[in-house]
Amino acid sequence: MTARHIQNCSVIGFLDLFGDAWTLLVVREAFLGTTRFSDFQRNTGAAKNLLSDRLTKLVDHGILEKVDIGTSGQRFAYHITPKGESLKPLLTAIIVWSNEHLYPQGTAPTVVINRETGEQMTQFNAALGMPYEQLATDFKVVAGPGASRAARKRFGS
Amino acid sequence: MTARHIQNCSVIGFLDLFGDAWTLLVVREAFLGTTRFSDFQRNTGAAKNLLSDRLTKLVDHGILEKVDIGTSGQRFAYHITPKGESLKPLLTAIIVWSNEHLYPQGTAPTVVINRETGEQMTQFNAALGMPYEQLATDFKVVAGPGASRAARKRFGS
Repeated sequence: MTARHIQNCSVIGFLDLFGDAWTLLVVREAFLGTTRFSDFQRNTGAAKNLLSDRLTKLVDHGILEKVDIGTSGQRFAYHITPKGESLKPLLTAIIVWSNEHLYPQGTAPTVVINRETGEQMTQFNAALGMPYEQLATDFKVVAGPGASRAARKRFGS
Repeated sequence: MTARHIQNCSVIGFLDLFGDAWTLLVVREAFLGTTRFSDFQRNTGAAKNLLSDRLTKLVDHGILEKVDIGTSGQRFAYHITPKGESLKPLLTAIIVWSNEHLYPQGTAPTVVINRETGEQMTQFNAALGMPYEQLATDFKVVAGPGASRAARKRFGS
């Protein structure tokens, strides 16, 4: 796009990498514990070449790490890096903002809840000021009232 | 995309609206105080029909409000709504994360600084944790070391 050259800004760099929904789906899967190519493929529904492209992009950017786990011959696993982990508060905030502002009540596909109390996070400001470790320990993403059957199966509730 | 139907999640709703870089450029302009169609056009470099489409989309989603300011005949201004304002912490966090993780040192196109001390925000948890009013009062986005000449002119430093 022309405007990128006229007026670059840091948000554009983020969109270059994550503005593509498939890339973000792959990151989400990595957060959910997926590490193998075939599992990424099954869980995202992405075509092989597309998935391969997005995984390579994420490895190149240091969001995922490609690890050879083969004992005889090559077998690879993709692990989320600390840089990748640092995206979690941002994605959590995006979920909470979207649920408040983009989805009519009762239609949120995913929600963020406190693991212990089950209480839903509705304000991203207060909650995301917390240290990352606390966010990871105390909260999780689960299927919301507007989740598809497949999403419900994937996220649990 | 097929995966959207297989496994919907709230992040996808966000990307549907903001994954397009032009939409975000328009929001950015609104944050910088732009209200008139011709000014949005000049500052973003977007074609008329594209800009018109994005403004309509943002008005439909309640991010911008279209106000008739004509004294004789119709003249319109686009104002950011409270819902639009609520995006500010999120976009600030995206800028800070991107500067830390996507831009090599000294190449950040935009940076977030404390208005009083000039100190650069380097942890986005800070941006997400503070009350919105404090973020708006105490911090501003300015051109970074990697800004183009046009961006430097637009953002100031």
